[in-house]
Amino acid sequence: MNAYSSKLVESVVNEFSRLPGIGKKTALRLALHLLKKDTPFAEALGNAIIKMRTEVQFCRECHNISDSEVCEICASEKRLKNTICVVEDIRDVMAIENTGQYNGVYHILGGIISPMDGIGPNDLNIDSLIQRVTSGNIAEVIMALSTTIEGDTTNFYIYKKLKNLNARITTIARGIAIGDELEYADEVTLGRSILNRTLYESTLTR
Amino acid sequence: MNAYSSKLVESVVNEFSRLPGIGKKTALRLALHLLKKDTPFAEALGNAIIKMRTEVQFCRECHNISDSEVCEICASEKRLKNTICVVEDIRDVMAIENTGQYNGVYHILGGIISPMDGIGPNDLNIDSLIQRVTSGNIAEVIMALSTTIEGDTTNFYIYKKLKNLNARITTIARGIAIGDELEYADEVTLGRSILNRTLYESTLTR
Repeated sequence: MNAYSSKLVESVVNEFSRLPGIGKKTALRLALHLLKKDTPFAEALGNAIIKMRTEVQFCRECHNISDSEVCEICASEKRLKNTICVVEDIRDVMAIENTGQYNGVYHILGGIISPMDGIGPNDLNIDSLIQRVTSGNIAEVIMALSTTIEGDTTNFYIYKKLKNLNARITTIARGIAIGDELEYADEVTLGRSILNRTLYESTLTR
Repeated sequence: MNAYSSKLVESVVNEFSRLPGIGKKTALRLALHLLKKDTPFAEALGNAIIKMRTEVQFCRECHNISDSEVCEICASEKRLKNTICVVEDIRDVMAIENTGQYNGVYHILGGIISPMDGIGPNDLNIDSLIQRVTSGNIAEVIMALSTTIEGDTTNFYIYKKLKNLNARITTIARGIAIGDELEYADEVTLGRSILNRTLYESTLTR
C-alpha cells in the first residue's frame, strides 16, 4: 500500500522535500494544505513556479535576476555606472537596496568560493567582473561579501585579479553593529573597529 | 523598482508565502533555490502540485485521499469493514497504519470542531459517518482524535449522534506513554491511567 494513500500526493511530498529546509513531514503538511484549498490556489503556485523558471532572465551586465535582458538597476539612468558593488546573491542586493545608501550598480557572483561545497572561482561570475572592470571606466569596486572565511577567500581572489587595474578596491566596513554593547563584541571585530576608526564628524553628517 | 528585481520571482515568493509556516524570507530562499536548479527540477514540482490538486480523489466511503473512487484500505478484502476508526486527517491514518495494530477501516473527518477557527460540525464529514453507522453493519466505532479540548468536544458531539445506534463506541486509550517516567506525567493523565487500568496479563500477550 502507498504510504500516502495516493501516488499523486506522494509525488508532491517527494518534490517539496527536495527543497532546502523542507523534510517529509513539512512536505506532507504543505501537500495537505493544498488539498484543503481550492484548485486555483494550487494552480497559481504550480504555474508561478514553472513560469518563473522558464521565463526569468539574468541581467547581461550584473547577472541579477531580471524580467528583461538588462535589469532595472543597470538600466536606470540614476545609478552611477562607475561604481560596482560585488555581492554573493540577489538577497544581498535587496538588503543593500533597502538601506537606501547605495547609488551604484552591482555584480552578482552567484555564490562564494567554498572548496567544502565544491564551489571554485570558475563556478562564479568572476570572469565577467574582471571584464567589466578592464573594459569599462570603473572608479571603484566595493566588495560586499559575508565576513566568513569563504567570503575573505573570495575577496582576496578577486582582489588579486583586479589590483593591477585602475579601479579602487574597497570593502564594506567591519565593526561594532549599531545597537550592540561593546562588552559582548568579539575581539577580532573590536580590534578591527579600533584600527579602522573613522572621524567622529563623519558619523554626524549621515 | 520591484523589490525582487523580477515580477516572476515576486509572484513565486507571494504564492509560497501563502503556505503555512512559510514567510517571505523562506519563500525567497525557495524561489532562489529553484533558480539555481535546472528547469526540469522546477517543472517537476510545479506539475506535481497541479496534477495532484486536479486529479486527486476522496474515497466515497471514508473520505481518505485516493487515486481512485474507493481508497486502497476500503477496497482491501483483508480489512474488517465492521470496525470504523474516526480520525481527523490523513496524517492520523498514516500514523495508525504504521503501528500495524489496526485492521479495520477509517473515517476521515477532515478536521475537528473548533469554534475558535470557525469550524463547526457541518464543515466536517460527520453526516456521512452517521449514515455509514446507520445503514451498515457496524460493530464498533473507535474515536481516535487528539486529546485536546477540541478533540473531546468532537468526540462528545459524535457520541451523542451515534449512541442510540447499534455500534459500540470506544476511544483510544489515554495513559502514560511507553518510555515515560511516572513522576513527570501530568495529574489528569495519571489519574485516567489508574481509572482505566488493564489486566497485567493483557499487556504480555501483545
